Amino acid sequence: MIRAGIVGGTGYTGVELLRILALHPEVEVAVVTSRADAGARVDSLYPSLRGATQAIFCLPEVDNLTDCDVVFFATPNGTAMLMASQLLTRGIKVIDLSADFRITDVKQWSHWYGIEHACPELIAEAVYGLPEVNREAIKKASLIACPGCYPTAVQLGFLPLIEQGLIDVNHLIADVKSGVSGAGRKVEIATIMSETGESFKAYAVSGHRHLPEITQGLELVAGKPVGLTFVPHLTPMIRGIHATLYGQVRLPCKDLQALYESRYKEEPFVDVLSKGSHPDTRNVRGSNYCQISVHQPQGAHTIVVLSVIDNLVKGAAGQAIQNMNLMFGLQEETALKIVALYP
Amino acid sequence: MIRAGIVGGTGYTGVELLRILALHPEVEVAVVTSRADAGARVDSLYPSLRGATQAIFCLPEVDNLTDCDVVFFATPNGTAMLMASQLLTRGIKVIDLSADFRITDVKQWSHWYGIEHACPELIAEAVYGLPEVNREAIKKASLIACPGCYPTAVQLGFLPLIEQGLIDVNHLIADVKSGVSGAGRKVEIATIMSETGESFKAYAVSGHRHLPEITQGLELVAGKPVGLTFVPHLTPMIRGIHATLYGQVRLPCKDLQALYESRYKEEPFVDVLSKGSHPDTRNVRGSNYCQISVHQPQGAHTIVVLSVIDNLVKGAAGQAIQNMNLMFGLQEETALKIVALYP
Amino acid sequence: MIRAGIVGGTGYTGVELLRILALHPEVEVAVVTSRADAGARVDSLYPSLRGATQAIFCLPEVDNLTDCDVVFFATPNGTAMLMASQLLTRGIKVIDLSADFRITDVKQWSHWYGIEHACPELIAEAVYGLPEVNREAIKKASLIACPGCYPTAVQLGFLPLIEQGLIDVNHLIADVKSGVSGAGRKVEIATIMSETGESFKAYAVSGHRHLPEITQGLELVAGKPVGLTFVPHLTPMIRGIHATLYGQVRLPCKDLQALYESRYKEEPFVDVLSKGSHPDTRNVRGSNYCQISVHQPQGAHTIVVLSVIDNLVKGAAGQAIQNMNLMFGLQEETALKIVALYP
Amino acid sequence: MIRAGIVGGTGYTGVELLRILALHPEVEVAVVTSRADAGARVDSLYPSLRGATQAIFCLPEVDNLTDCDVVFFATPNGTAMLMASQLLTRGIKVIDLSADFRITDVKQWSHWYGIEHACPELIAEAVYGLPEVNREAIKKASLIACPGCYPTAVQLGFLPLIEQGLIDVNHLIADVKSGVSGAGRKVEIATIMSETGESFKAYAVSGHRHLPEITQGLELVAGKPVGLTFVPHLTPMIRGIHATLYGQVRLPCKDLQALYESRYKEEPFVDVLSKGSHPDTRNVRGSNYCQISVHQPQGAHTIVVLSVIDNLVKGAAGQAIQNMNLMFGLQEETALKIVALYP
Repeated sequence: MIRAGIVGGTGYTGVELLRILALHPEVEVAVVTSRADAGARVDSLYPSLRGATQAIFCLPEVDNLTDCDVVFFATPNGTAMLMASQLLTRGIKVIDLSADFRITDVKQWSHWYGIEHACPELIAEAVYGLPEVNREAIKKASLIACPGCYPTAVQLGFLPLIEQGLIDVNHLIADVKSGVSGAGRKVEIATIMSETGESFKAYAVSGHRHLPEITQGLELVAGKPVGLTFVPHLTPMIRGIHATLYGQVRLPCKDLQALYESRYKEEPFVDVLSKGSHPDTRNVRGSNYCQISVHQPQGAHTIVVLSVIDNLVKGAAGQAIQNMNLMFGLQEETALKIVALYP
Repeated sequence: MIRAGIVGGTGYTGVELLRILALHPEVEVAVVTSRADAGARVDSLYPSLRGATQAIFCLPEVDNLTDCDVVFFATPNGTAMLMASQLLTRGIKVIDLSADFRITDVKQWSHWYGIEHACPELIAEAVYGLPEVNREAIKKASLIACPGCYPTAVQLGFLPLIEQGLIDVNHLIADVKSGVSGAGRKVEIATIMSETGESFKAYAVSGHRHLPEITQGLELVAGKPVGLTFVPHLTPMIRGIHATLYGQVRLPCKDLQALYESRYKEEPFVDVLSKGSHPDTRNVRGSNYCQISVHQPQGAHTIVVLSVIDNLVKGAAGQAIQNMNLMFGLQEETALKIVALYP
Repeated sequence: MIRAGIVGGTGYTGVELLRILALHPEVEVAVVTSRADAGARVDSLYPSLRGATQAIFCLPEVDNLTDCDVVFFATPNGTAMLMASQLLTRGIKVIDLSADFRITDVKQWSHWYGIEHACPELIAEAVYGLPEVNREAIKKASLIACPGCYPTAVQLGFLPLIEQGLIDVNHLIADVKSGVSGAGRKVEIATIMSETGESFKAYAVSGHRHLPEITQGLELVAGKPVGLTFVPHLTPMIRGIHATLYGQVRLPCKDLQALYESRYKEEPFVDVLSKGSHPDTRNVRGSNYCQISVHQPQGAHTIVVLSVIDNLVKGAAGQAIQNMNLMFGLQEETALKIVALYP
Repeated sequence: MIRAGIVGGTGYTGVELLRILALHPEVEVAVVTSRADAGARVDSLYPSLRGATQAIFCLPEVDNLTDCDVVFFATPNGTAMLMASQLLTRGIKVIDLSADFRITDVKQWSHWYGIEHACPELIAEAVYGLPEVNREAIKKASLIACPGCYPTAVQLGFLPLIEQGLIDVNHLIADVKSGVSGAGRKVEIATIMSETGESFKAYAVSGHRHLPEITQGLELVAGKPVGLTFVPHLTPMIRGIHATLYGQVRLPCKDLQALYESRYKEEPFVDVLSKGSHPDTRNVRGSNYCQISVHQPQGAHTIVVLSVIDNLVKGAAGQAIQNMNLMFGLQEETALKIVALYP
């Protein structure tokens, strides 16, 4: 059994790791940390986990994690970079669900995250954990930087077009909508239900932290700079991300549907819907799938890609476990064949 | 492998059976019927099932079901009673999620359901599928009448008090709130989101079909007639039932908490929360648990029981599979250790 | 023009006062206070008010309010009691939407609200602002204690039955469901949308602050002690309260419908629905109406009353303005003939 | 008093007309028609209107409307074109909230709406009722074609940029999100709450009926053909439209904020938010305002406009009444100074 530790077990991604790992046949969750709730049973805070875990929160200290084979960081940004090095030197694999190791340019990182990086020397070692791009590197990695939720949905949607050079990468548009769980389990006026229920808005139009991450990923594929307009929105539901992506045709493509199906036919968690479909976030609620469809309205010059994920699963905990499965040589789908909760 | 058939695969309980059985190690779903959609792939209607089933809807005819070991009826009321006999005579077990075999008094049944019963001779043979009351009978049964969603939540909440004769059964009150999926997947003005979203109402105060079912169940336990006021409400969410139950103290009880914990300590799917808790429907969303707490506000004469389930799982498909596990001698929890989807 | 001040203009009841008073032909909102946002335009915080107010928040100090004819306190409990006296001595009428002057027994008040009362000598002077009970006293009052939202819905529902002595007041049950705006505009994990959306729960079953207020009101009517079990619930919507009230018949009543219609026929804001109806909170969303229906299921011994209000209007700001209209000799309905926002 | 008739009083736009006109000082709603509910009181179907109307539904026949000064058509497409001519010849003004007279090219209309136009000779006479573009023509019109909800939000957002020739009109993108009330009060599986609640999806990407309407409006302003990609989405809330509009810079503009403020400074119902703002649909819920902000992220080549309306008010009934006020020489804001319902 793989012994897993979860640092930051009181946020939604931490609970989601526990939900999925509870049914993982090869993993035992050995440690769950929480500074605020150390000593309390995990299921006393999260009654949804009653019967699934006997764990007790302990303090987030390296000494408590040394028996682990792998440690997940489901923490706010800025925590994993303080502890990763000590774990790695002990031979413990680290899977970071926060943003600490996602951006290779440390200056960019500091600019967008507003703090100095505590461990810049590890950034180059970290593998960006998007299996659809980096599977082989992930298998050999010790430190994984799991993609953000928006970046996952946007990159998976754009990849086939950019890989084939079909669209003008100078004028990409990503209009993306997220459920409120993306804001995490923290108290803010903006996320109380009276404020977010029954309402829809864009936010951070001037610049969101996921912009440099997406741009970095797309540029690696394009092999040149890309110009991306990224507008995130908050939609009045709990789980789900819907990315609506727009690209201007550079080279004509005879069969976009075939392109997407071909690109993803070996991917266990990217599901290209039949031609003319519209994916719906409910159909991936609780599951690790990304469902995608591609359109070219009126056969004109704009390609529209629709890409949906559950932000807490393929956008966070599920993808982290997919990475773990790869890192430990397990079957990639293990514990992740969860059927979406519909309705 | 047990070969299962699902008659009525296009309603929410049918899809929920498919969701849960997809991960059942001992069951293969061999047949899924739908009169309207015969010939179509199940996952073309329900993209949440993509990757989980290859099934194609066929017509709901006995001949299509003869290779099954068990057939679930996830149909509107009045269908199972037309087909059950032919299946049973072929040695196929029948688990009916509709109301056809729930009421032992056929006149009562006809009164509340507004049609003549097509198969009254089978009613006595049917076992009411509430494992917490009828486990041994279920194990030997060929025909199961699965309880309704409201009756499940209400009976599990009241049982310990009535079994011990602690409350006045002439004045029971069940104030119960259901999510809208309880109304099924059918078109009605009343259930479109513009009508039910952001609003709360009671309905059927003068009498709801689940009233005689609940009364019948409680009377069996009480050993005498009970007087129950049952008020169902519609709450603006999709899944979940919350029963708030009121009983007047007849005999004092020193420790209600201990009574409930003791009554349900062997039950795999009834979870008595710690003293003073308030169950929340989200904590059983997608799971087969009933979470319960019991209170006696201000130590006065009214006992308040709070009981929550997911109406589509413990209130329908999950309980049906729990019955199936028992009928086939499998471990009762098989495929049902689903962790609730939170948040 | 009546010059009104609003102390605590940043909560939902404060904003709701501004929404309604914006169209009041006899009132000018002269002062709006906020300690945290003093100096800011009100509509910069609340863009829904753009075009409806030019007000700028000032500090909540008596000196800023001395030109007012009436001051509304839309503050947390414990603020009005510190300022009311100074305003009243200046001849300014005070309408308190908080709980400071609702409970006549100051010990009870301190017990439930957990603080000493700063101004007990004013409690006797305060008139409980439920026009359906106290209209004449309100007209002459200088200090109004506006009822809480739950107490408004519950009292209006029970009043006709208790006034006529028709039910056993020792065993009253009020099962009440509230939208989340009842929790106010404050940050708490419990009210973020990921926690309250798509879920339903009871809370404070052991005792809620509105219990003594309701009991006090019902006892005044009954002329004797009453035994009330009050269970509040949180329902996943923003506005609205639905009270489901249960009483055991003490004296038979030939025509409950006629009783309710007769009791409320002169009341501008209590609307008895036609026989057999079920009120729906959406039908009073944004309006000052209480819609009520009364049932006696199966003609048995339990009477069920359904009573709905908008917690922020008839349960707070609307009722406060109804009181103000009475205090200043205006037509009671002025500015309150708002049609509910449906759908 | 202006005597108004409403044909099709049982849809959401019909009820919304009744809600707003109930407080209009110059209008009396004389006739409300409904084929299905003729003979019933309007408020028996819509209890939100209790106290606001005594009207009884009558059949939708011209003879029932001849005493009206103005008739609103809140009907499905294809009805107004059958009755408008007879009303106009009697000197009755007609305001059509459906699509019958919106598209000047009758072939285009037939193509998108799938029926022959019954009254093509009136199309040229109809004035497109967007006051921000056509105010003077509206004042003199007898027949108004009210804009669709999406077209209102999109055109008001793009207008200033296109009027000034600032963006490339060949590559416009409108990513628009609507609440479910936009689908009307009709029964469809797709709009029941279990299907639309807690989920987000695009629809009609290949072509939506509002596309030719928007294109027509923008081309009139641009003075040349425009290329528009329009993707509508369904968001899990009842009211509100949020348009996110993307244009590529053609000519640099020193101050986009000033451009928008200047363009709309005389407009009573278009409200340009302060620089850097993000409009939120809740802030126009129930009101006739369009709130707009304009951004140029990172100062790059893509301009992003955010434009929100209430689809049933500025997108339907409110705009219709705004048109009526203009046609009858009333003050444009009459009955429309409704403050949005927040929260």
